[in-house]
Amino acid sequence: MKKLLIANRGEIAVRIIRAAKEMGIATVAVASEADRESDAARYADECAVVGPAPAGLSYLNQDAVIAAAAETGADAVHPGYGFLSENAGFARRVQEAGLIWVGPNPDSIDLMGDKARARQAAIEAGVPVLAGTDGVLDVSGDLEALAEGIGYPLVVKASAGGGGRGIRRIDSRTDLRSTVEVAQAEALAAFNSSDVYFERFVTHARHVEVQIFGDGESWVHLGDRDCSMQRRQQKVIEEAPAPGLPDDLRELMRETSVELARQTAYVGAGTVEFLYDPERQEIAFIEMNTRLQVEHPISEAITGIDLVREQLRIAAGERLGYGQSDIRLDGHAFEFRINAEDPNNNFMPSPGRIESLDLSGGPGVRADFGFRAGQTVVPFYDSLLGKLIVWDVDRDHALARAARVLDETEIAGISTTVPLMRRLVALDDFRSATHHTTTIESVPGLLGESA
Amino acid sequence: MKKLLIANRGEIAVRIIRAAKEMGIATVAVASEADRESDAARYADECAVVGPAPAGLSYLNQDAVIAAAAETGADAVHPGYGFLSENAGFARRVQEAGLIWVGPNPDSIDLMGDKARARQAAIEAGVPVLAGTDGVLDVSGDLEALAEGIGYPLVVKASAGGGGRGIRRIDSRTDLRSTVEVAQAEALAAFNSSDVYFERFVTHARHVEVQIFGDGESWVHLGDRDCSMQRRQQKVIEEAPAPGLPDDLRELMRETSVELARQTAYVGAGTVEFLYDPERQEIAFIEMNTRLQVEHPISEAITGIDLVREQLRIAAGERLGYGQSDIRLDGHAFEFRINAEDPNNNFMPSPGRIESLDLSGGPGVRADFGFRAGQTVVPFYDSLLGKLIVWDVDRDHALARAARVLDETEIAGISTTVPLMRRLVALDDFRSATHHTTTIESVPGLLGESA
Repeated sequence: MKKLLIANRGEIAVRIIRAAKEMGIATVAVASEADRESDAARYADECAVVGPAPAGLSYLNQDAVIAAAAETGADAVHPGYGFLSENAGFARRVQEAGLIWVGPNPDSIDLMGDKARARQAAIEAGVPVLAGTDGVLDVSGDLEALAEGIGYPLVVKASAGGGGRGIRRIDSRTDLRSTVEVAQAEALAAFNSSDVYFERFVTHARHVEVQIFGDGESWVHLGDRDCSMQRRQQKVIEEAPAPGLPDDLRELMRETSVELARQTAYVGAGTVEFLYDPERQEIAFIEMNTRLQVEHPISEAITGIDLVREQLRIAAGERLGYGQSDIRLDGHAFEFRINAEDPNNNFMPSPGRIESLDLSGGPGVRADFGFRAGQTVVPFYDSLLGKLIVWDVDRDHALARAARVLDETEIAGISTTVPLMRRLVALDDFRSATHHTTTIESVPGLLGESA
Repeated sequence: MKKLLIANRGEIAVRIIRAAKEMGIATVAVASEADRESDAARYADECAVVGPAPAGLSYLNQDAVIAAAAETGADAVHPGYGFLSENAGFARRVQEAGLIWVGPNPDSIDLMGDKARARQAAIEAGVPVLAGTDGVLDVSGDLEALAEGIGYPLVVKASAGGGGRGIRRIDSRTDLRSTVEVAQAEALAAFNSSDVYFERFVTHARHVEVQIFGDGESWVHLGDRDCSMQRRQQKVIEEAPAPGLPDDLRELMRETSVELARQTAYVGAGTVEFLYDPERQEIAFIEMNTRLQVEHPISEAITGIDLVREQLRIAAGERLGYGQSDIRLDGHAFEFRINAEDPNNNFMPSPGRIESLDLSGGPGVRADFGFRAGQTVVPFYDSLLGKLIVWDVDRDHALARAARVLDETEIAGISTTVPLMRRLVALDDFRSATHHTTTIESVPGLLGESA
């Protein structure tokens, strides 16, 4: 691998450029016309402007991205997360153009992208799943009996959905058929497939996940993470390892995640996501993400492993070179997603010029940002400015450090989620790790105030 | 310990405030009138202005500092490095005022401050020393015979000197008596004591050192460091562990440093400094610094131990709580001292307004700065703006990461040593770890150019 094209923007493009530079790999940033002056464009060796904002005309324009690779002589493409990262068709086009795809085999993307097939693969690997339909729902069958077997409330999910999209809750037999029909219609419109399936609904669930990595012949996990602090099913704070998980469940989750990777001959970085039901003390498979996650730095913080470097190394044909016993999990890490959003205005994006960006520092603090002071946040993309990652020897110390770091962090010129983060680290439910995926919405005063 | 007064400024004051905040200890910054708007003043819970610049009228004004502690109700004083940190008289005054002194016993400061006595203590602990006079030179004795026994070139050093001050080289018998007399007169003028001693002169020496830590009853080392990249005997880049040191010497250095701490019942953080002579493959004691070092973060990076937290913990009366076998040394770290100096003007201080301060980021990068964009660097103090600390799994990876980080670092409005740092990490002698303490002065073009 001599020259890498990064088909993304913002902090993750910067993150990938940094890893490539450290490995002596030349870098090509692609940028929309709105992102010409971005840090990614600045840090990369070359920048190819691939079209105007919004993303559909540039970052999602497969022809333009592949043409940029050809024109710049890039021999590899890293898709980052989002955009084209889980598009198997794009991955195949990259490979057919003779380029290295920095990601899993497109067949793995297809498999895990079909939630009913993914659930089946999980079952075969011994990954615990929620009670539900194994495979796609046969709507001509006895839905009522199926639903009784699973128990109410349950959810009907789009097979092609994922990331919290394409899900509807069903509370009783009365709503059953009508909700399934609505879900099918929505799935067809959103994902071009009306396939749906049932799963038990878990109240007060926690979101936990396992970072796996492999070269197609051997596999390891890099520990687990908890991403239960969410706002409208979007993660806002993540931590590693997952707190408060019973040892046997943690072990089961890690081992079966590696087994799922093994059985599907998975290549590169992937994340197996689980629901954890603290009341029943059960874990259950949600989905597998076939890409680098936003929250990968917290796994890097507790392992010392550079996941993007590992991705590039494996994509270039190197072997893993270490086993599970070589990986030591050490300490505790949090990631805070700093978004350009206005907490006083329902978290609407807050584009504008960043007047100052003072990000704290000191031991155990990492800043992954795609912006610097003086730059302008444009309104065309997701609102993530960057991430503050905080490590310390254990969760309590990491929490104290995080409070210090967030207290010192000052961003002027635009509204950000920093004030919300300060409130969240002070929240009793978060400090005691008894929060769940709807805690943010359920605590009065947490949203809608400024600081 | 409820409230800590930090008797320092700049990045080290910020560093100490951060550790205290994370431990729930209230903080009082002292500031000169010129430093009222500093980050230290901003981050501390309270700020006491103790006098005008320069330091003699404020940071070195013992009465004013102790009065500030009394007025704010502080119960502890951390001196940082420099200023009053190795002033045993001040340490005693702090203790006599009923305050906790965050540092070693004043008797340890006295012992190690007297270089002839320190050398004697080192010999008793089995620490290798350079051929030289054991104890203060008796100038009425046969100096010529003493000098022949040690061998030329040799150095005559002030007993009360240290940190590279109070040293003169003697190349032959002709210069012997006259140089000793000059050295005595200089020592008397500078340190109020005419005591001097002889030591062999080592050409192409490397500067290595061991970080030790203890509670007065048990002691550990946190590995070694190399600080050979110096300009006029001032460290500019440090790294941990020391590269290229034979295993047996590394072990000897670490073990005897801990033994020196044990024999002197040392409390807190200390550094035992050595010369390493790569030609003779010998190490020899230079001095022991009885304080936190500027370069302590690289030891933190390879051990995961927060040294300032440990200092505060021990000063508050806690026990060490771990032994040598609990300390794992992992990876390699560099520290780059970013000074406000003009490389085009003989590294003269470059005060002025910091227009922008973009410090890079990503995995393995720590920034410890005492300044932010928009602040003004005043001309009254040393020129250290802050430090970039870079960690990676081994020295080669850490070097590649350091090059990336320095490349991304952009500071505008004042001149800094960043361009020099970029040249140094590209230097063959540095990359191969064959540099020594006068490499910077000996490589043409390294100094005196801008980038």
